[in-house]
Amino acid sequence: MTRTLVLVGTGLVGGSFARAARNAGLFDRIVGLDRDPDAACEAVRLGVTDEAAAEIPGDADAVCIGVPVGAIAGWVERAHAGVPASAPIFDVGSVKAPILEALPRPLPNFVPCHPIAGSERQGVSAATGSLFAGHGVVLTPVAETDPAAVAAVTAWWRAVGARPWVEDAGTHDDLLAVTSHVPHLVAFALMRLARDAGALGHAGGGFRDLTRIAAADPEVWTHILRSNAAPVSRRLRELAGHIERLGEAARDDPDGLRAAIEEAGEARRGME
Amino acid sequence: MTRTLVLVGTGLVGGSFARAARNAGLFDRIVGLDRDPDAACEAVRLGVTDEAAAEIPGDADAVCIGVPVGAIAGWVERAHAGVPASAPIFDVGSVKAPILEALPRPLPNFVPCHPIAGSERQGVSAATGSLFAGHGVVLTPVAETDPAAVAAVTAWWRAVGARPWVEDAGTHDDLLAVTSHVPHLVAFALMRLARDAGALGHAGGGFRDLTRIAAADPEVWTHILRSNAAPVSRRLRELAGHIERLGEAARDDPDGLRAAIEEAGEARRGME
Repeated sequence: MTRTLVLVGTGLVGGSFARAARNAGLFDRIVGLDRDPDAACEAVRLGVTDEAAAEIPGDADAVCIGVPVGAIAGWVERAHAGVPASAPIFDVGSVKAPILEALPRPLPNFVPCHPIAGSERQGVSAATGSLFAGHGVVLTPVAETDPAAVAAVTAWWRAVGARPWVEDAGTHDDLLAVTSHVPHLVAFALMRLARDAGALGHAGGGFRDLTRIAAADPEVWTHILRSNAAPVSRRLRELAGHIERLGEAARDDPDGLRAAIEEAGEARRGME
Repeated sequence: MTRTLVLVGTGLVGGSFARAARNAGLFDRIVGLDRDPDAACEAVRLGVTDEAAAEIPGDADAVCIGVPVGAIAGWVERAHAGVPASAPIFDVGSVKAPILEALPRPLPNFVPCHPIAGSERQGVSAATGSLFAGHGVVLTPVAETDPAAVAAVTAWWRAVGARPWVEDAGTHDDLLAVTSHVPHLVAFALMRLARDAGALGHAGGGFRDLTRIAAADPEVWTHILRSNAAPVSRRLRELAGHIERLGEAARDDPDGLRAAIEEAGEARRGME
């Protein structure tokens, strides 16, 4: 029996899942859709998918949705209407609660997912089967989600080398605001500051590392930041408070400054 | 004739200059001093220096000062008093104007330097002869500085693969506040935010890159941020303004947000 994966959005993350799934032998046939027909054909040419299609085929055994966050819920509904109820549908979007809220009702075979892995590179040509190896993947099912769908999607993520876990969508969105969305805003702001100051010629390795993510896809990131604006605003305010207190300590409180730097270094080294 | 380099402070940057200078055949003998006698002995053991000393030898042909910023001016004076007027003295500190201001008078053979190269690693064991290859080095001589000393130090930096240029100390300190000091404060603040939020388990590659420099040496960074507090405060306020406007755009102005992200990406790609 042929097992068919449908990939909606033949971009970096979805394309990487397709490559990884193929390497792991999870599906026999991968069909790719993209609003840009050239991108769908490019995916075939690169061997990421087997076929390009304009609509979701009715015999899909799984649907992976890798489009910008604001477009995910619409594609989940279309997939739900077009595939068997036994076929899990999952997305790879960086924000979860707004997608669930945008659906008119919970769909049992939809398993919201966010692989915490990415790249500042863009497009299917940057897709790689090793993107998820060792990375966490957050699943945010709701009470109505079919446990069999969650189990199937969990097994697929494990098969591509990722570490999946289940979490509430709101918690996920808040924690990702902290580790990803606010840091992206900071990187954009640092680039603006350095460019306006004419300081780019004075950048060392630290600045390069810090701003690498400033080259991220503008469409993807406009979607993410807009749809998670409330947690992002709240966490940005907290960050601004920490930055202000560090600036004050630099002026008036060397011991406090040193203690804060020591704490930050300890936390950072604990991540390795 | 034996050419002797004296290295005051056998740490990461000074130790790397010693290694690179030895590789380039600039000196025949390297003498290391450190307030921590173990560090001075470790430098000998690792082959970074040839001898450990407690005082600057009078026959030095060059003195490289690689101690925390607040201690540099004092060592410049001691070196000036102890070595021939023909021996260039240079430092590798990240802040320049406060060092010049801390000297009772300009010293012709002192050439203030800042190699824009570093590492979050610490100590002489992390010293490497390739640290400066391809990196910029800012020299901030004053009107009284001996041009022959500037020429000699410039040639040494070139010999270790760096790109030296001359600049006003105040300009340097302001631009480094932008590309290095403010980014370090931001990295410390991001670690604090993520730790307090319990979000470290949700960190991806972007967060890791962004916070790598949060593991920097607390003593070195307390000195740098204190001594450059005024430019750092001013640039921090500018950054806070950019961050606030991006947060507002995430809530209310998708087109403005997208344009800002596109601009940041363009500037970042322009750095490669």
